[in-house]
Amino acid sequence: MAHEFDVIDTFFKPLSSVASADEIGIGDDGAVLSCQAGKQLVVVTDTLIEGVHFPVETSACDIAWKALAVNLSDLAAMGATPAFYSLALSLPSEKNNQAWLEMFAGGLKQLANLYNIPLIGGDTTRSDRLTITITAQGWVESGHAILRKGAKPGDLIYVSGVLGEGGLGLKAVQQHWDKASYASAIQQLNKPTPQVTLGYYLKGLATSAIDVSDGLLADLKHILSSSQVGAWVDVKSVPVSNCMQTYIQQSNDWSLPLIAGDDYELCFTIHPDNQITIHELAEELEISLTEIGQIVTGEGGIQLKNTPQGQTSLQSLGFAHF
Amino acid sequence: MAHEFDVIDTFFKPLSSVASADEIGIGDDGAVLSCQAGKQLVVVTDTLIEGVHFPVETSACDIAWKALAVNLSDLAAMGATPAFYSLALSLPSEKNNQAWLEMFAGGLKQLANLYNIPLIGGDTTRSDRLTITITAQGWVESGHAILRKGAKPGDLIYVSGVLGEGGLGLKAVQQHWDKASYASAIQQLNKPTPQVTLGYYLKGLATSAIDVSDGLLADLKHILSSSQVGAWVDVKSVPVSNCMQTYIQQSNDWSLPLIAGDDYELCFTIHPDNQITIHELAEELEISLTEIGQIVTGEGGIQLKNTPQGQTSLQSLGFAHF
Repeated sequence: MAHEFDVIDTFFKPLSSVASADEIGIGDDGAVLSCQAGKQLVVVTDTLIEGVHFPVETSACDIAWKALAVNLSDLAAMGATPAFYSLALSLPSEKNNQAWLEMFAGGLKQLANLYNIPLIGGDTTRSDRLTITITAQGWVESGHAILRKGAKPGDLIYVSGVLGEGGLGLKAVQQHWDKASYASAIQQLNKPTPQVTLGYYLKGLATSAIDVSDGLLADLKHILSSSQVGAWVDVKSVPVSNCMQTYIQQSNDWSLPLIAGDDYELCFTIHPDNQITIHELAEELEISLTEIGQIVTGEGGIQLKNTPQGQTSLQSLGFAHF
Repeated sequence: MAHEFDVIDTFFKPLSSVASADEIGIGDDGAVLSCQAGKQLVVVTDTLIEGVHFPVETSACDIAWKALAVNLSDLAAMGATPAFYSLALSLPSEKNNQAWLEMFAGGLKQLANLYNIPLIGGDTTRSDRLTITITAQGWVESGHAILRKGAKPGDLIYVSGVLGEGGLGLKAVQQHWDKASYASAIQQLNKPTPQVTLGYYLKGLATSAIDVSDGLLADLKHILSSSQVGAWVDVKSVPVSNCMQTYIQQSNDWSLPLIAGDDYELCFTIHPDNQITIHELAEELEISLTEIGQIVTGEGGIQLKNTPQGQTSLQSLGFAHF
């Protein structure tokens, strides 16, 4: 591979621009960052491996965007404002070239620029298989991070956007469906948009939140376990795209919006008194926020309402995630 | 593999114990950490890949120790006090078992307990090849991090401990030498001790510092480039073990202490006025600190003095690292 230090200087150092003169980005043993009074640091880490977390044919630009996006999505779920990130890149020799690295750095830059966050360091190594680990960090007012443990019986369950798109995009890519017909789903798979702004505004409003990375029901289950409550979800109210509606009608497979991962929307709970505020927030941010169910007493279980064709058990969907 | 969440709950959550009630370790979308007034955050990231950064036969305990140690060594070089770390573990199926994971978690615990630092999160994924990325974070008084750029002409160059041991250990393992005779070198390769305490006390004393991970000359070169100075190094004064002396006599290869990596000692510079203080510090900490050369004007070059057999060029050592 091109020498590690050349790769860093050429492609990654330009992404590193720290805020003040007494801070250090790339170029020393570590980065030095100033803290903000009254803030807590939120730290998240996610690894993407070629062929496991994204199809091998994904473009370098999209891989980089997604690697950062999935981390920013975790920050969003906690209501944190993204501050900086580090990158551990394990690079196979066939990707260690100007064109690939330029596109990869370009993908990072595209998303990082939206939030004005610098790359502050990391490590570049050789590997058989492309592996990207990003640790992203953000700030939240002390004691104000949105946690999974705050859901209370009676709270309403909401999700942002539409669900199942990432899973539909993966099917489209894997099964070589017509790309144009599934463009938005493939876009969602390869270049998801983290709900950072929504997360920021949910602080003090949501009683709990999580991002939908492993599938709605699996992720909701984490909220329920942490909060020691149960829930019901109205399957008919789970928001889906027109494309997904067509797919469900044709395939009779209605599981994707419930169990497919890679959506990176937020699932959150609110006290019923805040329903109007949530609708106003949706209008203000010009995003869709949909009520899909409610928290109930009793630990951990999810009851599905309005399941198609009289099916009620998750097992009948072939779903054994938990 | 055992389910990711089971692995986390069983092996890694016990390593996560944050300091105060309003902090979060493992178990949410991210960790939430409180900041300290007047402190800056130092962030370092290092990846270790099986077969690249450690021999395949290395024990799970030693792999974990080393993965954390190389990061703490970077924090030490900046004078930072370790605070917490996150772990991205890509695990092949043959290592996803109780015995391996228990030993791996045990190795992390052994070293983390020395500094009372919690594992605050991360990601566990499947992979063909064992890959470990740790991001470690520490605190340093604002503006007091030791940087690479502070070396001035006339400053004396010091190193801690003895050099080349990691490289000698690697040779011993790769060439199946008698393990008992090279025990301390193999120990240095597999289970290096980061110089955290030394780094802490060098703040305000060292004008620059770096850890010796890529070899003394390569790492010293980073100090020289950042500080825009040159240096001479007295080859005879570079501290080596008895074992290394024997190896050099037998092999006539005197390059290891200068160019072998994996030592994780500190190389630092001080103003000559602080020479006595450094000797007092060495006595107090009961470690060896050895003067090996001096910073001079002129950019980036290293002149070697007292090279054996009249050899003076790095190239004659087969060394083309820079």
